[in-house]
Amino acid sequence: MQTGPKNLITDVAGLKIGNARNAAIKSGTTVLVAEAPFTAAVHVMGGAPGTRETDLLAPDKTVTQVDALVLSGGSAIGLDAASGVADALRAQGRGFQVADQNVPIVPAAILFDLLNGGDKSWQRSPYYDLGQQALAAASDSFALGTEGAGAGATTASFKGGLGSASLRTPSGHTVGALVAVNALGDAVVPGSRQFWAAPWELGDEFGGHGTATNTQTAWPKTKVSERNTTIAIVATDADLSQAELTRLATAAHDGMARALVPSHTPMDGDLVFAASTNARQVQDPVTDAIDLGHAAATCLARAIARGVFAATAEPGDLVPAYATS
Amino acid sequence: MQTGPKNLITDVAGLKIGNARNAAIKSGTTVLVAEAPFTAAVHVMGGAPGTRETDLLAPDKTVTQVDALVLSGGSAIGLDAASGVADALRAQGRGFQVADQNVPIVPAAILFDLLNGGDKSWQRSPYYDLGQQALAAASDSFALGTEGAGAGATTASFKGGLGSASLRTPSGHTVGALVAVNALGDAVVPGSRQFWAAPWELGDEFGGHGTATNTQTAWPKTKVSERNTTIAIVATDADLSQAELTRLATAAHDGMARALVPSHTPMDGDLVFAASTNARQVQDPVTDAIDLGHAAATCLARAIARGVFAATAEPGDLVPAYATS
Repeated sequence: MQTGPKNLITDVAGLKIGNARNAAIKSGTTVLVAEAPFTAAVHVMGGAPGTRETDLLAPDKTVTQVDALVLSGGSAIGLDAASGVADALRAQGRGFQVADQNVPIVPAAILFDLLNGGDKSWQRSPYYDLGQQALAAASDSFALGTEGAGAGATTASFKGGLGSASLRTPSGHTVGALVAVNALGDAVVPGSRQFWAAPWELGDEFGGHGTATNTQTAWPKTKVSERNTTIAIVATDADLSQAELTRLATAAHDGMARALVPSHTPMDGDLVFAASTNARQVQDPVTDAIDLGHAAATCLARAIARGVFAATAEPGDLVPAYATS
Repeated sequence: MQTGPKNLITDVAGLKIGNARNAAIKSGTTVLVAEAPFTAAVHVMGGAPGTRETDLLAPDKTVTQVDALVLSGGSAIGLDAASGVADALRAQGRGFQVADQNVPIVPAAILFDLLNGGDKSWQRSPYYDLGQQALAAASDSFALGTEGAGAGATTASFKGGLGSASLRTPSGHTVGALVAVNALGDAVVPGSRQFWAAPWELGDEFGGHGTATNTQTAWPKTKVSERNTTIAIVATDADLSQAELTRLATAAHDGMARALVPSHTPMDGDLVFAASTNARQVQDPVTDAIDLGHAAATCLARAIARGVFAATAEPGDLVPAYATS
């Protein structure tokens, strides 16, 4: 099994990621965009989600394609990032066409980073601008760690961050994951530097520290941090319907379960968007669907570890960075 | 962290499990019952579920308590087991009272074991009788492995089976899991005898084989077996509402993700019921909810490994038993 050339979600041809952050605020925004509208779905599993335009992603609803997906810090205030993105896309003539009006469809999800040591004393939400900056920065290459929606993210032991990873499936489809890791739980086995995601590591993409052999101490002390929620996107070029993408998003949650302990708690708004460019035909609808789901789960687990692995220490941090601690 | 005295779901005081099976058919049924109605919820994550009375378990629906939960082999035909259980409970005067009528509420889920080498040439479904036999056998002690709903179960590499495990949480609640493991995926790391659930093993409850250190071969060959679906119940004495139990069932799916690879595929009807006897007050609704969810996930992962570990070889099996291969 091999990663794509960049080991990023942008190995799915046509997808671009833009990041923006504000170091003083310790927060930021990430946008996934493509040249043309793309099919999207979502599966929410955490107990405390913060979302916009997710009801419309249900397979029985009318709209199946979106113009962008937004992940943001800022708790519910960060949903404002989608407004900035939507206005910018509207100015470009993008959006769902209704007579002479175009309405950009920009589903969004947020994580809670309001208590991470950053300056949150704004009068007007900074997320509208962060959304626009992120969109303007969209590229097929981007940095991981303390970037975008992961700029202010934390986990129980170490800083969280923005992660990504990709895979080619046995039938030649590309699958990628993008995640802002801000879990109540841990990405490492408690008391160690070994990632829960280690069984899925390809090469030394998050340090090659191997799997923990003694995890009898794996029951975490419950740290009820108010900083929580891991939000992700899995994407593929496989020609999947919105209903099939809903199943892909569901399967991808297994990667969160394997890479974060605990995950999907009542205090985490954990969710996964699934997106497809529909560029590449599915050969066998059963086999490919199973492989794609497993690839999505595997990419998401690896992306979570890579996000924590790449995070960097900054002034005022409340939680140490994995790399420098 | 310690298991309950039996390391079974019946460590939750008041719960009883009954199993029945037919060796020629290679299938069977498991019933969870209590002296009094108990609160129940469900979360379905697989793509191919087979269920009865699960819509009524949504927190906005009127009925919050059930009389029994049934897990059965037999694919959709096995839902007949719940009819047998309901008739027997009705004869006992059990059930939701409507004027002088009592209607036993018996949610049920099935797994697909119709192509496992057993004799499926019945004219009339055997599951009604299996349900009644399982109910009659209900006890606070029961055997694991090739029993009840796990009697004809398989996984990709080894026989599946009926598993169970329990835990005491830091705040003193008891949590237990029961599972009929019939996954399209594997409970062991491919090519090894090491269980995916190994990080969660307590003592040598499934052999003490430890965690696999080399899992670079962990991408499974896709074997699209028609034999699939893992169905489970997690239970607790913690006084949780039906809505809180829905979150418990959701969190418990993480245990399936950690113990089975892949899991939650489009071809698996993977689901988890959650049940509470409501006997023991919750101290801190936030901390306890997180701990209970993590305990449920941990118990379910361990129960899955224990079910496969305990399965025994029988004439006509299409898949080897872990213990004797």
